Amino acid sequence: MSTSVLRTSEGWWVQTPAGAARIATSATTTAELLADRAAIDAAAAGADTVPVDDLELLSPVTAPCRVIAQMTNFESHVRDSGMDPKTVPLTFFRKSSASITGPFGEIVRPAHVGLLDYEVEIGLVIGRDVPAGSTVTENDLPGIIAGLTITNDVSARDIQLPQTQFYEAKSYPTFTPVGPALVLLDAAELARFGDLRLRLSVGGEERQNSLVEEDMLYRPLQALQSLTRFQDLSAGDLVLTGTPAGTALTAPPKPIEMIGNLLPPAVKWKAFFSRQAKNPKYLQHGDVVVASVGTDDGKIDLGAQRLTVRHA
Amino acid sequence: MSTSVLRTSEGWWVQTPAGAARIATSATTTAELLADRAAIDAAAAGADTVPVDDLELLSPVTAPCRVIAQMTNFESHVRDSGMDPKTVPLTFFRKSSASITGPFGEIVRPAHVGLLDYEVEIGLVIGRDVPAGSTVTENDLPGIIAGLTITNDVSARDIQLPQTQFYEAKSYPTFTPVGPALVLLDAAELARFGDLRLRLSVGGEERQNSLVEEDMLYRPLQALQSLTRFQDLSAGDLVLTGTPAGTALTAPPKPIEMIGNLLPPAVKWKAFFSRQAKNPKYLQHGDVVVASVGTDDGKIDLGAQRLTVRHA
Repeated sequence: MSTSVLRTSEGWWVQTPAGAARIATSATTTAELLADRAAIDAAAAGADTVPVDDLELLSPVTAPCRVIAQMTNFESHVRDSGMDPKTVPLTFFRKSSASITGPFGEIVRPAHVGLLDYEVEIGLVIGRDVPAGSTVTENDLPGIIAGLTITNDVSARDIQLPQTQFYEAKSYPTFTPVGPALVLLDAAELARFGDLRLRLSVGGEERQNSLVEEDMLYRPLQALQSLTRFQDLSAGDLVLTGTPAGTALTAPPKPIEMIGNLLPPAVKWKAFFSRQAKNPKYLQHGDVVVASVGTDDGKIDLGAQRLTVRHA
Repeated sequence: MSTSVLRTSEGWWVQTPAGAARIATSATTTAELLADRAAIDAAAAGADTVPVDDLELLSPVTAPCRVIAQMTNFESHVRDSGMDPKTVPLTFFRKSSASITGPFGEIVRPAHVGLLDYEVEIGLVIGRDVPAGSTVTENDLPGIIAGLTITNDVSARDIQLPQTQFYEAKSYPTFTPVGPALVLLDAAELARFGDLRLRLSVGGEERQNSLVEEDMLYRPLQALQSLTRFQDLSAGDLVLTGTPAGTALTAPPKPIEMIGNLLPPAVKWKAFFSRQAKNPKYLQHGDVVVASVGTDDGKIDLGAQRLTVRHA
């Protein structure tokens, strides 16, 4: 049965039907907490609880850690981005873990950023060290993936597109809300990964709603097999698995893109960004972004995060 | 005066005119070594030396660490890549530190890679923690940059271009040769950064030769000011500062690129890669790649690395 782990400035908690039970552990990092499974299990069986609503939750994934993300990994989002799902390669990029923030705080748009966008994603939390060059099989997955969490791959589109590399535009402080819970799954639950539905709304308006089974291109097994060809992984690392359609940014129609490619970059981007500035879906000051992930039958529930947007 | 630090499986050394003097330190990581400056200085003044040629040198930068790289940062390389130096943004990407290898070993081309390319770069070795959000001024540079080293940003072009993100294609094991030395510089020496010349040859044929002063777009001060907006840095991290013209890959002529952009991606890349396969500059099995960096007057000398290419 899944176990939902929470974190506050006081320490670690397990969410039980009765409330949050404190975990008796000296762990300060997610890696240390995951190594203290006996303490987690003891708390899950414990009686002393406090109401979860009384807790000020932090990200259950602590920084520093590696934050690795899959690019364009949902068919719907690939089409939205003007690409072909049949030819889009399995691709990773990095985010700074300084971008991690809690599940109920603020997303802060830096002063130099204009076009702030959202991307709900399922985060894989790595449970053990996996050196580059390791072979990863289906049977290894429950050991490598300790659990799942909700993430938002917040993106500064006016930085991302001219740079082409996604690293900076997705790495500013608060650009990776994580949580509320790190949900530890057993093998049978992890096998239901395809049944997870991702949802994101802005100001109560649903923007993203997609089922993994119907939409995700490269699943965790294939992703981890590819990633471990070149990247060491450690317990507590975070792998974001891509977002479905519904972000503020969508690709321009093909003819406009082709004309754009004939223009000098400065002219092309100026025209593109002035069109995008009229798009009301980019995140505005005061917007409330709610993201949730779970199976439709409620058996696996990663909860919901709720962030408020602030323009610096 | 600069101090050249070397590393072997036995530990750390300072290169003196008489030979290599062992550093009496318990440091195992570059960060720990940099914190033990007294031991480095004692070795630099020491008398007991062994010939440097007797040492089997490892990378003076230990993994894991952050490896961060600047994209297209030399005017000559920007033009070679079909872009405009006046509009190319200051851009970073990440490499896996599992790609770090020593200065006299092998560069291994993975079996699934076809087009293996080289990029000599100056590596900045970070000397102290710099949290994201820090202000960085010219006066801070000598404290933040402990020293310089030679790096090669080895690249699998047939992976890099279709993926668009550079992370995987530049992160396979052995894709970041580092060293031979970590050269610790004082403030006056660091101020001569513009006088450094980068050189790379393959099989004795010079492919890259460029002076920072004449060719580098975004210098370390501007790079670190931009980077610390979103990325924590720690002692021992490595920042690669870009490569000049002369890599095997060059952009196709503009008309060919425009026609290419009208084709479906699979067709476009097939045509591009079959043209590139005839390009003899890509690294072949047995090729010897020599990279060196120093000032023309010899006052600052990062040495030379010599790697042999092996096709897996």
